[in-house]
Amino acid sequence: MTAPFDFAPLLAPGTPAPAVKWNGFPKYNFIGGHNDASHVPVQALIDAATAVLKREGATLATYGLNSGPQGYRPLREFLAAKLKSHAGIGCTADEILITSGSMQGLELVNSLLLTKGDTVLIEQETYGGALSKLVKLGVNPIGIPLDEEGLRVDLVKQKLEELKQKGIKPKYIYTIPTVQNPTGAIMGEKRRAELIKVAAEYGVMIFEDECYSDLIWNGERPRSIYSMADGQGVIFVGSFSKSIAPALRVGYIAAKFEIIARILGLKQDAGSGALEQMILAEFCTKHFASHVPKLNKTLAAKLQTLREALAEQFGTAAEFGDPPGGIYLWIKLPDVVDTQKLAQAALAAGVSLNPGPEWSTNKAYAKSRLRLCFANPDPETIKKGVEVLAEVCRREFGVPVRSANVEKK
Amino acid sequence: MTAPFDFAPLLAPGTPAPAVKWNGFPKYNFIGGHNDASHVPVQALIDAATAVLKREGATLATYGLNSGPQGYRPLREFLAAKLKSHAGIGCTADEILITSGSMQGLELVNSLLLTKGDTVLIEQETYGGALSKLVKLGVNPIGIPLDEEGLRVDLVKQKLEELKQKGIKPKYIYTIPTVQNPTGAIMGEKRRAELIKVAAEYGVMIFEDECYSDLIWNGERPRSIYSMADGQGVIFVGSFSKSIAPALRVGYIAAKFEIIARILGLKQDAGSGALEQMILAEFCTKHFASHVPKLNKTLAAKLQTLREALAEQFGTAAEFGDPPGGIYLWIKLPDVVDTQKLAQAALAAGVSLNPGPEWSTNKAYAKSRLRLCFANPDPETIKKGVEVLAEVCRREFGVPVRSANVEKK
Repeated sequence: MTAPFDFAPLLAPGTPAPAVKWNGFPKYNFIGGHNDASHVPVQALIDAATAVLKREGATLATYGLNSGPQGYRPLREFLAAKLKSHAGIGCTADEILITSGSMQGLELVNSLLLTKGDTVLIEQETYGGALSKLVKLGVNPIGIPLDEEGLRVDLVKQKLEELKQKGIKPKYIYTIPTVQNPTGAIMGEKRRAELIKVAAEYGVMIFEDECYSDLIWNGERPRSIYSMADGQGVIFVGSFSKSIAPALRVGYIAAKFEIIARILGLKQDAGSGALEQMILAEFCTKHFASHVPKLNKTLAAKLQTLREALAEQFGTAAEFGDPPGGIYLWIKLPDVVDTQKLAQAALAAGVSLNPGPEWSTNKAYAKSRLRLCFANPDPETIKKGVEVLAEVCRREFGVPVRSANVEKK
Repeated sequence: MTAPFDFAPLLAPGTPAPAVKWNGFPKYNFIGGHNDASHVPVQALIDAATAVLKREGATLATYGLNSGPQGYRPLREFLAAKLKSHAGIGCTADEILITSGSMQGLELVNSLLLTKGDTVLIEQETYGGALSKLVKLGVNPIGIPLDEEGLRVDLVKQKLEELKQKGIKPKYIYTIPTVQNPTGAIMGEKRRAELIKVAAEYGVMIFEDECYSDLIWNGERPRSIYSMADGQGVIFVGSFSKSIAPALRVGYIAAKFEIIARILGLKQDAGSGALEQMILAEFCTKHFASHVPKLNKTLAAKLQTLREALAEQFGTAAEFGDPPGGIYLWIKLPDVVDTQKLAQAALAAGVSLNPGPEWSTNKAYAKSRLRLCFANPDPETIKKGVEVLAEVCRREFGVPVRSANVEKK
């Protein structure tokens, strides 16, 4: 036997704590961007895999297939057409870079623009993963409050002016304008135009994250900011994780080629996974347009199941809206509830949730707020999970007092 | 029209130069880890995709399938069995982390251990991608000379002692002991044992890269360093890029779980691509053992084609060995040849090659050396490519004087 080797003294400074061994998903899984399992288009993916591999399988022998480092060209061509019809974006396949999930997109854009000590503006409530990446980079994310239409552009302007007085120029404004995460808000075109004007005035880029924009119940959406700005000063990221399947890890960046060319210099991974790109391109060209409305119908019904369960179990103690799309609901509980503590107690009872402070720069505002994702659990699990959550919340914080019209003690 | 936005002032310091638009592969492609297109097992991959998606396709709805962040469990189980029989490694599926190519493995290990200003020992001639990543991190890679058995462990010890006197402790010793890149050397077990002893004595980790170890003509190989050290103080990376197909982007790390747990904290990509992992696992369990020898037979023949073409075109002006495996040949040309200049002139004639200095820490030693990869081009292309290369070399540097026994002027 070899003597144990102590590697701890060799670790780089700031290495995160070790992960615990994975033990399966919680019983009531309300976190993560997981999707509805019954809507994974299994047979169509098999057909797509068979067709594309028969035709082009031998190209797997070369890095990047025959498409180069920007990703499988037929997938980029599908995207160019989809972005045109869906979001009004007039880009070509050369202005699209396929990434390993939109998360790699976020990282690449951050690598391109950010260095320690930089400032960025973000939506006060925003995607927790984007927020934690910024903090890890030593960047200062300034949260701008939202209203029912999303980012308050008047406050963006005010903050940019205030920073200008201090000699600080933020690198970008990060926004999820279409089905905002976590509030579900959709920003109208008038406000988008104002945002473009303000950003240009202060020389700040807009980083538009459209990961959820396919999931809108009525299918109607404003033009993307990228489209409205002719792509000037805007970098756009999207994903197939929410519309097809999250395990696929296929996202994309759309930007002017001079920006794509810079990002390519940073994407040192010898390309994103080829099978996923090939199979997706083959599937999407035929089925994307018909697949998404079917998925949305199920998601919209699950949202209502969740809203009804919350109303039944929490009564007036839980405040929430009726978002027009997405996979999450943003909920306000009474001020007495600390959702970070609630999350721990709930997890012990098999319920996972995102406590508000992980999804906000304003920890006090978000303290009694939480995000529940509804796409993955089936309706019965949603109902039962909310019931368990209400029980835990009552036990820990004394609210809700009544559940399902039965007083509890 | 929106006014053009100048993003240049917003770029992070040190951003690499923009990439040029990809224009297809060069006609005579002797670079990159590309593989033989006729050996991509297309029908078996279709069968694997069909079987695994039918059985488990719905699990694509969750990040990480049902396997958690370490990667698709059946693939890790296949690997544990393969590493046992092939390399003598007695690890479990919990001690394996699937990565997006072994390149992500390199980056994760670097993130775990390295910070700017650190020192590492590497083989003087080594994988150019590993070298450039270290330089980019601001790490000091000290090259240790090689002989026909690979890394000179006597010189490793000497360097470690010399550094110790200066108060410097390198973080790791990076080695490709089995089919060394670019020399093709295979380190014997006696030397491996010495390396383990020396590394333990100085408290330095060994980073064992076995990307090419499946590609050995006679199928015989020493036990891995990881196996001989019972995994103590060793991190092991491997890949399916060379044995199945490079476009897949599936690699892996094997290490003690406490190290895997630390690396998991750094792998913030929501998992590697699921379809690739599922299809690979299904394929490999049935076909890996029979696939690899067939591929090796073709690669061994291509190597001889390349050697014969070099002998014919360059005569005694090109010196090279007869490596026992791999996809590359390391070649010495006359001292008058500068292979960095040769690479530029050759590319203009459609021939791509790796100039020695990109693959070595000793730029003077490597100046007239180069690496040619032979797995991708077909035999006729290899012959013609070497002929074109000899013509370019003669035009630029006056050697070789004679080609194919015909004196040139």
